[in-house]
Amino acid sequence: MVEGQKYYLGVDGGGTGCRACLCDANGNPLSYAKAGSANVMSSLEVARDSILKCCTEALLEAGISAEELPKVPIYMGLAGAEYEAQNQKLRQSLPFENMIIETDAHISLEGAVGSGDGAAAIIGTGSIYQFRHNGVEKTIGGWGFVVGDLSGGAWLGRALLQEALLVYDNIHAGSDLTKKVLDQFGNNPQKIVEFAQDAKPGDFGVYAPLIFEYADLGDAFGLYIMQQAIANIEETLDRILPDADSRFCMIGGLGAVYAKRLSDDYKKRLIAAKGDALSGAVSLAIQSFSGKDL
Amino acid sequence: MVEGQKYYLGVDGGGTGCRACLCDANGNPLSYAKAGSANVMSSLEVARDSILKCCTEALLEAGISAEELPKVPIYMGLAGAEYEAQNQKLRQSLPFENMIIETDAHISLEGAVGSGDGAAAIIGTGSIYQFRHNGVEKTIGGWGFVVGDLSGGAWLGRALLQEALLVYDNIHAGSDLTKKVLDQFGNNPQKIVEFAQDAKPGDFGVYAPLIFEYADLGDAFGLYIMQQAIANIEETLDRILPDADSRFCMIGGLGAVYAKRLSDDYKKRLIAAKGDALSGAVSLAIQSFSGKDL
Repeated sequence: MVEGQKYYLGVDGGGTGCRACLCDANGNPLSYAKAGSANVMSSLEVARDSILKCCTEALLEAGISAEELPKVPIYMGLAGAEYEAQNQKLRQSLPFENMIIETDAHISLEGAVGSGDGAAAIIGTGSIYQFRHNGVEKTIGGWGFVVGDLSGGAWLGRALLQEALLVYDNIHAGSDLTKKVLDQFGNNPQKIVEFAQDAKPGDFGVYAPLIFEYADLGDAFGLYIMQQAIANIEETLDRILPDADSRFCMIGGLGAVYAKRLSDDYKKRLIAAKGDALSGAVSLAIQSFSGKDL
Repeated sequence: MVEGQKYYLGVDGGGTGCRACLCDANGNPLSYAKAGSANVMSSLEVARDSILKCCTEALLEAGISAEELPKVPIYMGLAGAEYEAQNQKLRQSLPFENMIIETDAHISLEGAVGSGDGAAAIIGTGSIYQFRHNGVEKTIGGWGFVVGDLSGGAWLGRALLQEALLVYDNIHAGSDLTKKVLDQFGNNPQKIVEFAQDAKPGDFGVYAPLIFEYADLGDAFGLYIMQQAIANIEETLDRILPDADSRFCMIGGLGAVYAKRLSDDYKKRLIAAKGDALSGAVSLAIQSFSGKDL
């Protein structure tokens, strides 16, 4: 507990960006700021710079000197923070006197369902499932799209490019969606291969909205891949939900678009998230450092 | 045509290694040599060094001065040579006065079926299909394992690691094979993720033999992924074989082990390859530079 503390910081850091919120001792937000990527596994230096940048900006925005930064207790939820060795290195490179670093999935669950039992499917570029049952919190998935992250945006985009190449080779019949993608690459498969060779998960994820759009139009491949994606999600929900009545949230960039495509059995157990990941980080900052339960 | 030439070189260059064969004017091999990787897309400098190293060694082995190297006509089949821009750069960095650079799939087909019509499924770390119909040669697949190379060793290995993580997360039931893989990583999923993040196709391909071994033992996941792999291969064979009687070869590191798992319908149309890719390169060197048809 940090006595007499007037301000707290919450941070939500992921592969595409990092957000900070400065709040008062009651958890009321005073200012917000954004910066670049803060994925602990991708680059420690980039993560440190992004965190310092958005936290400093949040202080300045609230009229507080940047020199105060090390004294403000901070709760961070960062992508890749489950990798303890990296986590430790990041911690040593940051100036905060009181800091907690947890995963972004952890603050997302806090934001979505609060500190009681509950579950959240977090699906954006990747996919990860965070849940708390009888007070014990667990994580499923989130292994990155090379060997995991099923149904995430990167997984969807890569599947589409693979299909486009099978269509180019006349092995599969093709659909309006695969035709559109091949057109975008000038019907040149080598351009797809060159793109894929250097593509980061977010680059593949750029194609996700197109897949949802075409699935809505009844496109054969769009519907096929959507069926696979929903099957992966429902199979994992079966794993994380303790019984047939358990409720869950669908969050992350693709959470809402997937939610409306779930089977009725799952759709009726969906609940809205209370707040976002950053609100979870702020709440955890207050709980952890002031002892207040918001 | 190169008049009065006594020697010719054939080169087979792939992602894992490069082989050269020096032959006389009748195509009789005089010497062989090996060197490292020669994949045009991966690294031009490495490819150039590997090619020069094994060609020079082949000359020395046959008692010919290395100074003669530029004068020996050479036919190379190299992985990635379909990328014309890279191909041109490699060509400019090599000292040969008479050289032809083609894909490794092209020399593989020549080695397997000679210069007439025919087809070869070339499955090793990757997968590519080369065929000649009415004298017109074509290539299908071979797009690399990120968005293609279905059923190749890298594709198999990655699928196994993905399944192992689903088993670790208790989403899938698991088999002896997935248990063995998890054991190899100390049942630590983060080690699998770290491995996958830096893994080259060949690193994933290391797991391919294990999959065949366990499929033979009746392992549930081994059989499942084998069924997918065979379906991909047969679907592509349907595409490349002009009619129901057309014959084909299965070559590459996994060609033989897949061949015995094909459905009877395909198995009965299998023929043995006449020779390997390097023998194809040698044959093409003679045909191209001396005008002789071997």
